[in-house]
Amino acid sequence: MIQMDPQEVLSLCKRRGFVWPSYDIYGGLAGLYDYGPLGSALKSNIENHWRKLYVLGEGFHEISCPIVAPEPVFKASGHLDAFSDIYVECTKCGETYRADHLAAGMHENPASLSEEQLGRLLRDNQVKCAACGGELTSPRRFNLMFKTQIGAGKGKTAYLRPETAQGMFVNFAQVYRYGREKLPVGAVQIGRSFRNEISPRQGLLRLREFSMMEAELFVHPDVKTWPKFASVKDESLSLVPSSGEPRIMKLGDAVQSRVIANETLAYFMWLTQRFVVDIGLDPKRLRFRQHAKTEMAHYAADCWDLEAETSYGWIEMVGVADRGCYDVQAHITHSGADLTAFERFDEPKEVEQEVVRPVFGALGPLFKGNAKLVAEVISKLTPDMVRGKDRIETEVAGKRTEIPSTCYEVVTRKEKVSGRKLVPHVIEPSYGVDRIVYSVLDHAYSKKDDYITLRLRPSVAPVKAGVFPLMPKDGLEEIAMGVYDNLVKAGITAYYDDSGSIGRRYARMDEIGTPCCVTVDFDTKTDSRVTLRDRDSAQQARVRTADVVAAVEAVISGRSLEDVRRMG
Amino acid sequence: MIQMDPQEVLSLCKRRGFVWPSYDIYGGLAGLYDYGPLGSALKSNIENHWRKLYVLGEGFHEISCPIVAPEPVFKASGHLDAFSDIYVECTKCGETYRADHLAAGMHENPASLSEEQLGRLLRDNQVKCAACGGELTSPRRFNLMFKTQIGAGKGKTAYLRPETAQGMFVNFAQVYRYGREKLPVGAVQIGRSFRNEISPRQGLLRLREFSMMEAELFVHPDVKTWPKFASVKDESLSLVPSSGEPRIMKLGDAVQSRVIANETLAYFMWLTQRFVVDIGLDPKRLRFRQHAKTEMAHYAADCWDLEAETSYGWIEMVGVADRGCYDVQAHITHSGADLTAFERFDEPKEVEQEVVRPVFGALGPLFKGNAKLVAEVISKLTPDMVRGKDRIETEVAGKRTEIPSTCYEVVTRKEKVSGRKLVPHVIEPSYGVDRIVYSVLDHAYSKKDDYITLRLRPSVAPVKAGVFPLMPKDGLEEIAMGVYDNLVKAGITAYYDDSGSIGRRYARMDEIGTPCCVTVDFDTKTDSRVTLRDRDSAQQARVRTADVVAAVEAVISGRSLEDVRRMG
Repeated sequence: MIQMDPQEVLSLCKRRGFVWPSYDIYGGLAGLYDYGPLGSALKSNIENHWRKLYVLGEGFHEISCPIVAPEPVFKASGHLDAFSDIYVECTKCGETYRADHLAAGMHENPASLSEEQLGRLLRDNQVKCAACGGELTSPRRFNLMFKTQIGAGKGKTAYLRPETAQGMFVNFAQVYRYGREKLPVGAVQIGRSFRNEISPRQGLLRLREFSMMEAELFVHPDVKTWPKFASVKDESLSLVPSSGEPRIMKLGDAVQSRVIANETLAYFMWLTQRFVVDIGLDPKRLRFRQHAKTEMAHYAADCWDLEAETSYGWIEMVGVADRGCYDVQAHITHSGADLTAFERFDEPKEVEQEVVRPVFGALGPLFKGNAKLVAEVISKLTPDMVRGKDRIETEVAGKRTEIPSTCYEVVTRKEKVSGRKLVPHVIEPSYGVDRIVYSVLDHAYSKKDDYITLRLRPSVAPVKAGVFPLMPKDGLEEIAMGVYDNLVKAGITAYYDDSGSIGRRYARMDEIGTPCCVTVDFDTKTDSRVTLRDRDSAQQARVRTADVVAAVEAVISGRSLEDVRRMG
Repeated sequence: MIQMDPQEVLSLCKRRGFVWPSYDIYGGLAGLYDYGPLGSALKSNIENHWRKLYVLGEGFHEISCPIVAPEPVFKASGHLDAFSDIYVECTKCGETYRADHLAAGMHENPASLSEEQLGRLLRDNQVKCAACGGELTSPRRFNLMFKTQIGAGKGKTAYLRPETAQGMFVNFAQVYRYGREKLPVGAVQIGRSFRNEISPRQGLLRLREFSMMEAELFVHPDVKTWPKFASVKDESLSLVPSSGEPRIMKLGDAVQSRVIANETLAYFMWLTQRFVVDIGLDPKRLRFRQHAKTEMAHYAADCWDLEAETSYGWIEMVGVADRGCYDVQAHITHSGADLTAFERFDEPKEVEQEVVRPVFGALGPLFKGNAKLVAEVISKLTPDMVRGKDRIETEVAGKRTEIPSTCYEVVTRKEKVSGRKLVPHVIEPSYGVDRIVYSVLDHAYSKKDDYITLRLRPSVAPVKAGVFPLMPKDGLEEIAMGVYDNLVKAGITAYYDDSGSIGRRYARMDEIGTPCCVTVDFDTKTDSRVTLRDRDSAQQARVRTADVVAAVEAVISGRSLEDVRRMG
């Protein structure tokens, strides 16, 4: 365990403009943070690297959906019913608390308790308001989606999305068509999501508004092999399986021994590891923890969280899950839309096929004038959707309707078919951007005798080069300004600084993770060379003034000072 | 006026995956659109170009604030009181309408009327519901911010931001400190904003959720000159002043003759024009329209809208305004925070200074135990804030408090000061991204005998190159796949297509604006060259297979096929 106070990193972040508590002049609001100029650039660099990996590298299609979504989306997804926490409120000062947090230590798993059980536990333990000692209300359930209303008058109930995923599920048909009707096909989305936390603490780790990068890979239900898996099967990951000992395993072995459910899941776990190492996380402080069966959503086939060890302890940053057909099927059921893929057979087949057929004798008396519409809806159902149920709830002509099982039957029909419809399964890598940003800062932070260096990878560092005239006189400023202008023209973020000692200026750049600094001195005027200083080694090289852009580009692409020196 | 139906562009957009109506499977929702893979890439390219111009080119600091903001922010900004429309609702079917839209043609300026006046007008004209003929309610005012609540229990009222600007105003002190306490200093923000429109129509032009790119330049109130203005003073813009004839004017003349209020404003108008032309808008279909005094916010000194002529007619895309000290001053008044800049004199001066001083004799009896706190607040006020008012409304110890003018006085004091505090003025260029995206598509759209070509600038085109094997056989696919892989590895978005005739494949790429296509044919196997085809001229060149990446990069950077041919 690393001995470091998370406040150290956060305090650097606030002081230097990585993040600020939001709306500070109005007293602030827990769980909301601004990204300042440095944080904003660091976050963009991380997001762009991810985009390159998924969109260019793996061929996912990036889409962008609204944050505000109407209620039926979350009725279908399950968020309306199940995305909630239990809270109590102080009757005196109005402070709110998560009931399971207050019950910590009073039960082995307070999060599993009902409102009643938690109420009894808190009463028995005479828990009062921590802020003012007041009495607490009975526990109540609180849905964690921000609620709002679209339009004037009665309007429509809507919510701020709790994840970007639903936008991709409801668009499966569009994405599938855009990908020219082949599986697998993947969509990604990067954007804000919301969770109306009851009592958020912990800086960037538990936010009410946060950014996610999510990928939804739609696959054939029976085909979870992955062509590129062969190229990574000998790579190793640190795994914490839900049963058995933590271990470092080769991916090939992990899939073969069924520790990881399938190749596709394993491939995206590897891609995730590669991504976070690329942006600077220490591979020795990473592990994949498998969800226990009890912790996993009932529909998920397998789920692994990538965790990083930080000054907060181990924190979850990414989840990689095989979600089966749950999500797409839920939207088919609730919307009645056809969100299936079509598998074309090599040649048409005579098949016995189970279909759902309306029973008109029962439909007529029950639905009268609507019977024909209901029959149409029934014809679109698949046997899986009705089996073992005594009624189906669905939309008919825009109205929620219950259809009892007497109104339909599953029959076997022989017919020649050219293919079949499938509800795709989903493999979902889901990344919490703010936690990743925090972990990158945490792993990069180093301090020696009160001298702080942020050892950010050059590729993600917000500022790539500091540019200094040794003294702001004798024309050194003009030369330095010229160097600065050339960098900026080449699209490189640089920082011009002419105030204070050179040591002080280096320190300012080291503290924000700038990988190199360029100093123009008196010799520059005669030898047309400048001093390039490397952040991590503090070593220096003289390079031609005319070569500064190329030298800094070399540093950004990860080459050593030795390489750069050879250029000069 | 261009004769084209906006539905043509929208229909292409939906068919090919630029935009889709959101939540379509649940019946959709007016005013919400998804960006599909092509739209998403086009929009990102436009945003990144803007970012480069403002952040790298002009040195603005990019920040990123939450979308959800607490009520006091919008009390201060004025949105809570003034950001509203008047609507009527059908008492039968519940449809809502903007009252001023229904009154179109019944009054010369329905938008200027009160609820009562509109009600009388609609009654007198016997206006009924357009959908069902039902009776309409009396007109009511509707605040256009989406409202929500933060936290459980009583919680806090919050809104989705109607613009990104407020996040930058409330952070002035942070941005000023980050910029090392100098004026001018600028912040930019790119992100979603919200407007709960009563009855949105018109595709991408009137959205309930949209993206903005906003810049807030904080300047010294007396210094609105701009060093770089000299380099653009001979550039011309098409101006529609609020008084006088539309005309094309040189910027230098426009500032000199006071048609445009100052150099800084004029410079950012020019930068705006340059930006939209860079991304592909036709300069002949652009104009800057000045707000009339009655249309302009009372505090604004000058405001110009950049408009583009599209198939919808002239539409507003960008506003460039001198907002004076209004925004920062409003947040100083409401929060009590010090959001001033400090102007250091060359040497300390003996000055007569007006200050606001508490009158303790009046304060004591009125505020009793709070008198000291109130006196402290009074000491922080500036003479400008109290002059001509008979009371001040402000926060004292977290409570809204009225302080009558008997409790303070403005006195003149002689003292030695090293500088003075100033409330900065704000020059604000504010860009509506979705309208810009629409205009770019609209100006790029061309159709000849039913053949559609989207003449997007290569720099913003979502796909940069199509890659085709002439036939998917005899190893042509492997060579084409190799070309595709090389492009993608170089970070270039390419599209591999091996189905249908070559003509069909060119057509698919022309329709989405792909600037060039690379075809691998049977000769490629012997001469190691491929055919590069230019979208706009339909001309072709043979280039070496090994040079494809460089050739496509040349096309993206805007070079002609002739140049590219010379490379080969």
